[in-house]
Amino acid sequence: MNNIQLDQQGRLKHFLGIEGLERTLLIDILNTAASFLSIDAKAVKKAPILRGKTIVNLFFEPSTRTRTTFELAAKRLSADVLNFNVDTSSASKGETIIDMLHNLEAMHCDMFVVRHNACGAAHFMAQHVSPHIHIINAGDGEHEHPTQAMLDMYTIRQYKGECAPLRVAIVGDILHSRVARSDIHALRTLGASEVRVVGPKTLIPKGVEALGVKVFNNLKSGLHEVDVIIMLRLQRERMQGALLPSAHEYFQYYGLTEEVLKVAHPDAIVMHPGPINRGVEIDSTVADGERSVILPQVSNGIAVRMAVMAMILGVVIPEQKEVH
Amino acid sequence: MNNIQLDQQGRLKHFLGIEGLERTLLIDILNTAASFLSIDAKAVKKAPILRGKTIVNLFFEPSTRTRTTFELAAKRLSADVLNFNVDTSSASKGETIIDMLHNLEAMHCDMFVVRHNACGAAHFMAQHVSPHIHIINAGDGEHEHPTQAMLDMYTIRQYKGECAPLRVAIVGDILHSRVARSDIHALRTLGASEVRVVGPKTLIPKGVEALGVKVFNNLKSGLHEVDVIIMLRLQRERMQGALLPSAHEYFQYYGLTEEVLKVAHPDAIVMHPGPINRGVEIDSTVADGERSVILPQVSNGIAVRMAVMAMILGVVIPEQKEVH
Amino acid sequence: MNNIQLDQQGRLKHFLGIEGLERTLLIDILNTAASFLSIDAKAVKKAPILRGKTIVNLFFEPSTRTRTTFELAAKRLSADVLNFNVDTSSASKGETIIDMLHNLEAMHCDMFVVRHNACGAAHFMAQHVSPHIHIINAGDGEHEHPTQAMLDMYTIRQYKGECAPLRVAIVGDILHSRVARSDIHALRTLGASEVRVVGPKTLIPKGVEALGVKVFNNLKSGLHEVDVIIMLRLQRERMQGALLPSAHEYFQYYGLTEEVLKVAHPDAIVMHPGPINRGVEIDSTVADGERSVILPQVSNGIAVRMAVMAMILGVVIPEQKEVH
Repeated sequence: MNNIQLDQQGRLKHFLGIEGLERTLLIDILNTAASFLSIDAKAVKKAPILRGKTIVNLFFEPSTRTRTTFELAAKRLSADVLNFNVDTSSASKGETIIDMLHNLEAMHCDMFVVRHNACGAAHFMAQHVSPHIHIINAGDGEHEHPTQAMLDMYTIRQYKGECAPLRVAIVGDILHSRVARSDIHALRTLGASEVRVVGPKTLIPKGVEALGVKVFNNLKSGLHEVDVIIMLRLQRERMQGALLPSAHEYFQYYGLTEEVLKVAHPDAIVMHPGPINRGVEIDSTVADGERSVILPQVSNGIAVRMAVMAMILGVVIPEQKEVH
Repeated sequence: MNNIQLDQQGRLKHFLGIEGLERTLLIDILNTAASFLSIDAKAVKKAPILRGKTIVNLFFEPSTRTRTTFELAAKRLSADVLNFNVDTSSASKGETIIDMLHNLEAMHCDMFVVRHNACGAAHFMAQHVSPHIHIINAGDGEHEHPTQAMLDMYTIRQYKGECAPLRVAIVGDILHSRVARSDIHALRTLGASEVRVVGPKTLIPKGVEALGVKVFNNLKSGLHEVDVIIMLRLQRERMQGALLPSAHEYFQYYGLTEEVLKVAHPDAIVMHPGPINRGVEIDSTVADGERSVILPQVSNGIAVRMAVMAMILGVVIPEQKEVH
Repeated sequence: MNNIQLDQQGRLKHFLGIEGLERTLLIDILNTAASFLSIDAKAVKKAPILRGKTIVNLFFEPSTRTRTTFELAAKRLSADVLNFNVDTSSASKGETIIDMLHNLEAMHCDMFVVRHNACGAAHFMAQHVSPHIHIINAGDGEHEHPTQAMLDMYTIRQYKGECAPLRVAIVGDILHSRVARSDIHALRTLGASEVRVVGPKTLIPKGVEALGVKVFNNLKSGLHEVDVIIMLRLQRERMQGALLPSAHEYFQYYGLTEEVLKVAHPDAIVMHPGPINRGVEIDSTVADGERSVILPQVSNGIAVRMAVMAMILGVVIPEQKEVH
């Protein structure tokens, strides 16, 4: 039931989650991002595409890193950006979220980039805003983080070509990860040949097989001959609960080391959404090693966010072709 | 004694309060705002009018909402905006406010938008800055909030035409409200036929009749056949003091409901400076109802602030005519 | 060993400290700043020199004032500016500083303006960033604050002409002052005839004479016939330790008053990096008096920072001449 994301012509109106989007649309995003990556690397990193548009970063959870990538993407398209940290705003004065949205609409803002710790928050807002307002989900609870998934797909395509024949493993705290959920939908839609989730039983959601993935509790088995490894960040707060033993013990069983990496395909790439915990989920020699594409992911993240913003605001019409 | 607001040619130099300004000047602001409202609603909401000017939001009280409207207004006129939250600045290092102002002046800033919890703070600053610096009062204690009054006047004119023959009621905590004070001056200057203040005795300032208003302690009497209702926000902290019983009891006596609204003129409009407390001073059915112009007030607020900034910086000379 | 600051052609690549930079380079900075001072004072204070560049203010210590001057300088050159307050960023999630820098690099940022409480922090970063990234030191612990020194030199040249025949006294807490250290290097390099440091023994670093300065513990002796007086800000926290008696007693011995000022050259100028503590290190009659050039220092600070940014990013090639 994601068609709230599309307008009547089937074009992207909001970007709330990967679930329910078609393959051609995801490929449009990747192709559009490719054209922005070159802008992004130029000496003058500025295109007048969104000049006179107002984009609001509406962050109900603190996040310097993700907010910064959206702010940069918007500024490089020449939009005006407002940063709204909702802790310190009138939310504390008892205003409802819907009233806040309507007020920002009345100020003629065009797009809200929303992060919230409640699953479905971005969907909820998309259902309640006026027709001319657009929402991008920058992470809603443990649900989806669709721009992260698209930058992951972009990076995989960049290093591996088409997704189709690839074996991909996602490793770590699958249970609490919106990145994992969005990546699984994207990989399945784009046709990865096999998607694996790898982690301790306490951190694998029950019934995840229904999403079309294979579950592994042993790291070496899970990484056997894979082409792509997506390491997840281990939230340190999990270790205070009953879900996990110490960081040290986690690293022993699920930390990615050079030695473990040998079981993967010799050309396998290593990805991570950042920020990395060195020595917890990944060894420094791997994070900084030649198979790591963690920093290219960051660069691709700006281009993908530029692409989604430009497509949603209707100023870029992606060419209808795939890049091989 | 507000002539500090005007230069020797009688043009606006600072915008500190409505008190003491002449009718023609207020009408100039409204007419200028009308021309900016169209910019504000365009796809490319950007005019190069204040390009190369530096405007500083100098907020000694936290306020995301009001600060945002000034920031948007400035950016849509292409000014550079600095947000200065004074809690976290060198104010805490013991620097005086005057030294801070002089430093910002020396950085060649052009305009300070000031909010401060002390009455007269903006006047004080206007008296101490260099001749080429301009001050806009974004709220000084319980004294004035002149841009709010002008957006209220704009909204009234938009829905009711000329102010002259109108009966207007301001309802709530008149005692602590800078909005009420500025609105009363503006309505009296623009020639509203009757201005009423409505609220419990503890929240009506003694001697307010001297401003030319009628006092009502009963809501239905106060709203009888009025054309415009301006509801004030009830500060929840008042209810901890001795001034008020519970929010629930307040709503029973002074909350605006559909039923109470029936005593007003059938075409009466309902205004509120926001953010609204649903179920405290206003019922949701009224706030979201067809007589509510609360969201248009927000849109008009951007246009009015653009108008004041542009007029003060001398780049817009209002046409000398009234719109009927 | 500051050659990390220069590229192979001897041009400025980073601006980390004055120590080790040659006289001609410092004079290039002053001459370039002179050309920017005129932009800065124009009605339209905007040059497209750094359009499409991204400059990150990376402040690990809170500082509204210094951050603002860099933000203004960057915006007046049309750069995009990101403010990164590192307390609230992913630094708190355990990310290393190097990982943070590499992430910002991957976002195609061009320059980091860094303030950190550890001496050598900016050098450390310059050693670890990619070749196309530039670092400006906005203050590292008690080590250097080179843009402050250059604005001081600019101000001295503005009021005194060439530095060469001047006698300069720096007064106050020399021990903890990065401003003092950078000023001493700059004055020595530019050829001031005599540099004095004046303060209580507890606040003069041992062996400071090796930098080519004369030490005075008595204020009147130290200021005798000097041409330039640089007062340092007294950090109030020093007075809680054993280093200093009360602020009152400090003022008695080391506060600059009109009376003390009489021992200096009749044309002596009084400088201060700000914010000033009135009645602690300087009397208000002096701070606001006709020999004070404290506010011109602030204006010059914007121009000097514009100059350094533009020179480092290679878009301004200073003319090879000295101004007399």
